Amino acid sequence: MNSINNIIDLALMEDIGPGDITTDNLVEPDQCGTGIIIAKEPLVLAGLETARQTFLKIDPALIFITDYQDGDLIETGDVVLKIKGSLSALLKAERTALNFLQRLSGIATMVRSYLKELGDSQVRLTDTRKTTPGLRVLEKYAVRVGGGHNHRHGLYDGVLIKDNHIAVSKGIVNAVTQIRKKISHLIKIEVEVTDMEEVMQALEAGVDVIMLDNMDLEMIIKAVKIINHKAMVEVSGGITRANLNKLSKTGVDIISMGALTHSARSVDLSMRITLD
Amino acid sequence: MNSINNIIDLALMEDIGPGDITTDNLVEPDQCGTGIIIAKEPLVLAGLETARQTFLKIDPALIFITDYQDGDLIETGDVVLKIKGSLSALLKAERTALNFLQRLSGIATMVRSYLKELGDSQVRLTDTRKTTPGLRVLEKYAVRVGGGHNHRHGLYDGVLIKDNHIAVSKGIVNAVTQIRKKISHLIKIEVEVTDMEEVMQALEAGVDVIMLDNMDLEMIIKAVKIINHKAMVEVSGGITRANLNKLSKTGVDIISMGALTHSARSVDLSMRITLD
Amino acid sequence: MNSINNIIDLALMEDIGPGDITTDNLVEPDQCGTGIIIAKEPLVLAGLETARQTFLKIDPALIFITDYQDGDLIETGDVVLKIKGSLSALLKAERTALNFLQRLSGIATMVRSYLKELGDSQVRLTDTRKTTPGLRVLEKYAVRVGGGHNHRHGLYDGVLIKDNHIAVSKGIVNAVTQIRKKISHLIKIEVEVTDMEEVMQALEAGVDVIMLDNMDLEMIIKAVKIINHKAMVEVSGGITRANLNKLSKTGVDIISMGALTHSARSVDLSMRITLD
Amino acid sequence: MNSINNIIDLALMEDIGPGDITTDNLVEPDQCGTGIIIAKEPLVLAGLETARQTFLKIDPALIFITDYQDGDLIETGDVVLKIKGSLSALLKAERTALNFLQRLSGIATMVRSYLKELGDSQVRLTDTRKTTPGLRVLEKYAVRVGGGHNHRHGLYDGVLIKDNHIAVSKGIVNAVTQIRKKISHLIKIEVEVTDMEEVMQALEAGVDVIMLDNMDLEMIIKAVKIINHKAMVEVSGGITRANLNKLSKTGVDIISMGALTHSARSVDLSMRITLD
Amino acid sequence: MNSINNIIDLALMEDIGPGDITTDNLVEPDQCGTGIIIAKEPLVLAGLETARQTFLKIDPALIFITDYQDGDLIETGDVVLKIKGSLSALLKAERTALNFLQRLSGIATMVRSYLKELGDSQVRLTDTRKTTPGLRVLEKYAVRVGGGHNHRHGLYDGVLIKDNHIAVSKGIVNAVTQIRKKISHLIKIEVEVTDMEEVMQALEAGVDVIMLDNMDLEMIIKAVKIINHKAMVEVSGGITRANLNKLSKTGVDIISMGALTHSARSVDLSMRITLD
Amino acid sequence: MNSINNIIDLALMEDIGPGDITTDNLVEPDQCGTGIIIAKEPLVLAGLETARQTFLKIDPALIFITDYQDGDLIETGDVVLKIKGSLSALLKAERTALNFLQRLSGIATMVRSYLKELGDSQVRLTDTRKTTPGLRVLEKYAVRVGGGHNHRHGLYDGVLIKDNHIAVSKGIVNAVTQIRKKISHLIKIEVEVTDMEEVMQALEAGVDVIMLDNMDLEMIIKAVKIINHKAMVEVSGGITRANLNKLSKTGVDIISMGALTHSARSVDLSMRITLD
Repeated sequence: MNSINNIIDLALMEDIGPGDITTDNLVEPDQCGTGIIIAKEPLVLAGLETARQTFLKIDPALIFITDYQDGDLIETGDVVLKIKGSLSALLKAERTALNFLQRLSGIATMVRSYLKELGDSQVRLTDTRKTTPGLRVLEKYAVRVGGGHNHRHGLYDGVLIKDNHIAVSKGIVNAVTQIRKKISHLIKIEVEVTDMEEVMQALEAGVDVIMLDNMDLEMIIKAVKIINHKAMVEVSGGITRANLNKLSKTGVDIISMGALTHSARSVDLSMRITLD
Repeated sequence: MNSINNIIDLALMEDIGPGDITTDNLVEPDQCGTGIIIAKEPLVLAGLETARQTFLKIDPALIFITDYQDGDLIETGDVVLKIKGSLSALLKAERTALNFLQRLSGIATMVRSYLKELGDSQVRLTDTRKTTPGLRVLEKYAVRVGGGHNHRHGLYDGVLIKDNHIAVSKGIVNAVTQIRKKISHLIKIEVEVTDMEEVMQALEAGVDVIMLDNMDLEMIIKAVKIINHKAMVEVSGGITRANLNKLSKTGVDIISMGALTHSARSVDLSMRITLD
Repeated sequence: MNSINNIIDLALMEDIGPGDITTDNLVEPDQCGTGIIIAKEPLVLAGLETARQTFLKIDPALIFITDYQDGDLIETGDVVLKIKGSLSALLKAERTALNFLQRLSGIATMVRSYLKELGDSQVRLTDTRKTTPGLRVLEKYAVRVGGGHNHRHGLYDGVLIKDNHIAVSKGIVNAVTQIRKKISHLIKIEVEVTDMEEVMQALEAGVDVIMLDNMDLEMIIKAVKIINHKAMVEVSGGITRANLNKLSKTGVDIISMGALTHSARSVDLSMRITLD
Repeated sequence: MNSINNIIDLALMEDIGPGDITTDNLVEPDQCGTGIIIAKEPLVLAGLETARQTFLKIDPALIFITDYQDGDLIETGDVVLKIKGSLSALLKAERTALNFLQRLSGIATMVRSYLKELGDSQVRLTDTRKTTPGLRVLEKYAVRVGGGHNHRHGLYDGVLIKDNHIAVSKGIVNAVTQIRKKISHLIKIEVEVTDMEEVMQALEAGVDVIMLDNMDLEMIIKAVKIINHKAMVEVSGGITRANLNKLSKTGVDIISMGALTHSARSVDLSMRITLD
Repeated sequence: MNSINNIIDLALMEDIGPGDITTDNLVEPDQCGTGIIIAKEPLVLAGLETARQTFLKIDPALIFITDYQDGDLIETGDVVLKIKGSLSALLKAERTALNFLQRLSGIATMVRSYLKELGDSQVRLTDTRKTTPGLRVLEKYAVRVGGGHNHRHGLYDGVLIKDNHIAVSKGIVNAVTQIRKKISHLIKIEVEVTDMEEVMQALEAGVDVIMLDNMDLEMIIKAVKIINHKAMVEVSGGITRANLNKLSKTGVDIISMGALTHSARSVDLSMRITLD
Repeated sequence: MNSINNIIDLALMEDIGPGDITTDNLVEPDQCGTGIIIAKEPLVLAGLETARQTFLKIDPALIFITDYQDGDLIETGDVVLKIKGSLSALLKAERTALNFLQRLSGIATMVRSYLKELGDSQVRLTDTRKTTPGLRVLEKYAVRVGGGHNHRHGLYDGVLIKDNHIAVSKGIVNAVTQIRKKISHLIKIEVEVTDMEEVMQALEAGVDVIMLDNMDLEMIIKAVKIINHKAMVEVSGGITRANLNKLSKTGVDIISMGALTHSARSVDLSMRITLD
């Protein structure tokens, strides 16, 4: 809610600053027009509401018309959104609104595309905390729009015990025992493991989720067998589109990929304006 | 300056929120360690200072050691930065600091790589306003680190007259005449043109820069000849790594690419921590 | 982290505003002194760091001396904290720092006292979201300091399905099935139930935690038997110090009380100042 | 005005954070309902407007219906406020709005109740600066709603000379003389005294108000006689409901109690929702 | 856009703080009236929209009626603006709105008056960066309203090379060569010079604008002749109303004066209120 | 405290924005120098600390040397402040720091000069609420530095009953009676009157201060005689340097002038930099 408000403010401020010196000097305040946002390539739409909020910050009187909603598959040439009203407002908000829409749709499109590699599998494809600074809430939303799932939002809504936590706690069992006594009863515990020895310890500790970190296919299959549904299994590290399909058949429950948010490219959308 | 401060705050807040429930419950406040940030692939480094500021927000007593500076070419395995101090602080700032460093270095690396296509040419490769919302200042900095140039920062530090401005002003000459009377004497005027007719008008109007929008190679060469150094020439639209080299030989002064900022992937950097 | 920073800023601003007209007009800037914060009643200390941060906002050069830490039992007359430095800074920060310390210690003291009613029981005493606006993170911290546990921090780090959610979802089983598919794998699901029929549905849905809302002792015992460790059991509503002990013997896992944060009274602490 | 805006924002942010994961995943955006806020005990209502603003932050289209206004005496079972509109918005704002309403009404209720101890006396019952950090303006408003008066709002709108100010100024007369020359002509001067010697000095200095700090009944009566209407008289320190009545008959003008704001318990209000 | 929003918030907060204790205690919320803002002296109007935004922050339901717009010449006694609605809102916003309007109109009036000294000359009269902290955007707007031009808005939208820059760069030619390679192609380069030697170097460097700093009339005329339209010429320093006319005949292109913003006096406007 | 912090941030942001493109491209980060701020005319110094804070925001390592403090009379050519450290920081903060220093010293200088007109009179010369938006606290501070006094800071720390308040309250006596019951006991009541009839009513109401609004000398003298020390007397409206002396001999206690803050011109200070 509010953090989205903040990032839209920041984005408009950095683009407009003390004023749009081209538009302010050429366009009369009462000149109206229609902005037409068009897809220049096939994409999964995400960020319509953020784009709308961006335009509304410049002029609350703008009117929006669309046949689509987030999650819809858009074809090249489709009109994603029409905005009617002050030409000056359209020109000032255009770039910022498109920057949001292109990035969020880019993520949703990538996620949707990667999900095809998983076929009918029940495996979850999740994001990570490797998001663009300031855009966490929006990018995680775009992952869901694309059909993916969210891993924890931040350090506050899930326990993930990593090697350094284990080291200072003298072992996985100690760490899990200690933290279980303290955290909210609504939070699960996940432990990152790198070998079978640690898998065994995690099982002994009774963790909810075991993350197999950077294991090869063979090790993953072995670990899944050992874990045998006594905990959920997540794989992470070294995951690419190329090995998604194979990973989905190993019996793991969750595949997490930083690339979904940190390396999605923006999709191509542009805005054409017609004058009234 | 201050806007960078804001985005670092936003980024830490969205990651840490009400607290790091894993670290706060497992790591003693007096436990110290060393974080070692290592390159997992070759890259052009950008964002060291932003990463440093991110760590300092969590603990101003952290100490930083590095042999590198922004712009340096880093090889796989190189230690980019060591941070010594509170283990808890290292764990809390790690992801956010890396998110900045990976994204900014990703941009610098892409720019450096694209510049090779230009060979010895004097052509400038510039960014656009297609940056990630909230990261404009940082991403434009990364473009410079990579060896590229910045186009205008926002709507306030350069005039760019586009089709809609031309339409409401009844032609390029009118638009340019009108705006020249009003803007600061330190700002130049650029006009976006799509055909030779408009090129001629732009020349007649005496603009400083002519942007050839989405023209093919042949048209570009023709336009450059017509313009004949009476204005700077920028090409924009439809530019990819594949046609950069050819474009650089057309005689244009500036090639601008949105992809430099909106579609760079993050480079791979990770932090290993050793306990004291 | 940062939200605590904000609330300290707000609190100092509302107290000092455009200036401390008494101190600014009577105390020379170079006059120094020592502030001595003394307990006027027995209490469990909470908020030392917040008080310290409050003083530091006014003068980063102040020096702090204490023999205690949060969670310590303090007796009447004990010196909780000494602050040495600018007299003017001591006078300006005094009230705000004490307001934090008195409220947070008030909560910790109440929690510690209520825990005695639970005897050796393994039952958790948790807070709720009924906290003072703006102080959520600090008040939940004070609950932990007192020996209590936190329920979810907000609407984002735990699922709690209530009657209206059940109504719009056409029943508990539907609601749980639907939400399980969507939420992060690190979040557990709790359902609020009011009768045995709903207890049975919650068990069928396989929820992680069942909240027995406003049930009497007899019903609670019956529900615990039915649930039989297939889910954690929380009781909520109508809980007072008087019935805590009885509730702790019903076999429930968690007792949650809004009063821990919304009705704790501030404990009595005062600051005496000596001039250098 | 604005600071209230800030604290509502802070309160909603800390409750909702990145999203209400229960409601967002179960409630359709177009589902409507009616929230009905009901008193679970007799109370003096305070905070209606703050609650309304809280709901409006989540959805400006919500509609409010009430028969009451702040200051009204509400009986158990009375419907304090109905809110009609988006079910999702009702569920998200509910807890934060109630937290404000319960706390502010709690203060107003306590004040109203304490005022009964004063009977027909013209004595003012005032608050202090011992308010909850961030809620000063709202809590002082609740005191007025309950029928009490406000002491100074902060360090900026009243002079209160305490022992340390006296010490550094070499006596009450010096302190008062010095400060009178400097402060605005619209601000009165109050001095805190602890014995008759100081009462005499305060009178000599011609202060506007004398605060008798922690004096017993006998001393207070003696001081009132000595002061003899040459200054207003305030008593402070060690005041409880039990001695209010006796104090009100001593001839003092003002009784100030920190407990009005720092130790009021929240009153019980709950919101029931019906679906449309 | 947003920074104006911020300064209005700041201004209202510093005036109203915790409340308007006169109006809140005397005026009923449903009392309405009409505020009539009248010019007490001839002036050039500037800041209508800022005044309007200020009133709207207090009450979005206020209605505005005016026959004028910014830039209009207003005579003594003219009604500049009528505001209808809540009396309480009128009284609370009055002073802040007038403070903006009086200052901005003061600047516009001074600029318009100074422009008369320039007669039919094509010389530009520009402001500088010597603006009131926090009001840069508004004051530069008022300069334009008065008929003046803006110099660069800040350090980011124009290059101005001064003596220290020259010193560290080993001369004007080096400095210009170095910076031209780095800055955006839409930004011009200005150099501040103090003697003919530096004028020659600036010409050699091919700068866009040469600022003659604190030169006397004779030197200015000589410099203009030497520069001979190979660069624009700005004069700065020591400029007063008295020498404006003479300077305008020297052939310079731009005269910049800090006094336009740092030493304009507020014009006299007052608000009379009639009750409904 | 904090609001000063905010206005410094705003001022630096509006000047530096995304970067100082001249300095960032020409000055090496390790280049040091000394900034020497010199008075170009006689002045009363005010704002040293604000200037210092402004520099420190850019670089906390800068070192300050001065022989003066606020309130000192400075002669032409005096070195007001030396700042040693990073040349880049000096260049970036220079303009903003000077803008504060020049404006605040301008006010202090004007006040000091006007006070001379009052001779040995005990009359107070006070400011009003006609301050520059955002600079209230600083400008009122500068008035005190110059030897003047502050009127109320805002609408919250003094009651000033004006014509509209009187009209809605059915007369001065009613208004005063009503408000006295409600306001804090540390706040005085002032009433604005325009004729002798109202003076009599104000006396009857027992107000603390009577403001004679826009009365001529004769009427003022008559009013002072009638009031006869039963209330303090303030004159306001139509006050200029020319009539200050005469007004000071009428027996009034307070003369308030908006011009002190709204029409002071900035004094001339400049910064010279030497390179290390």
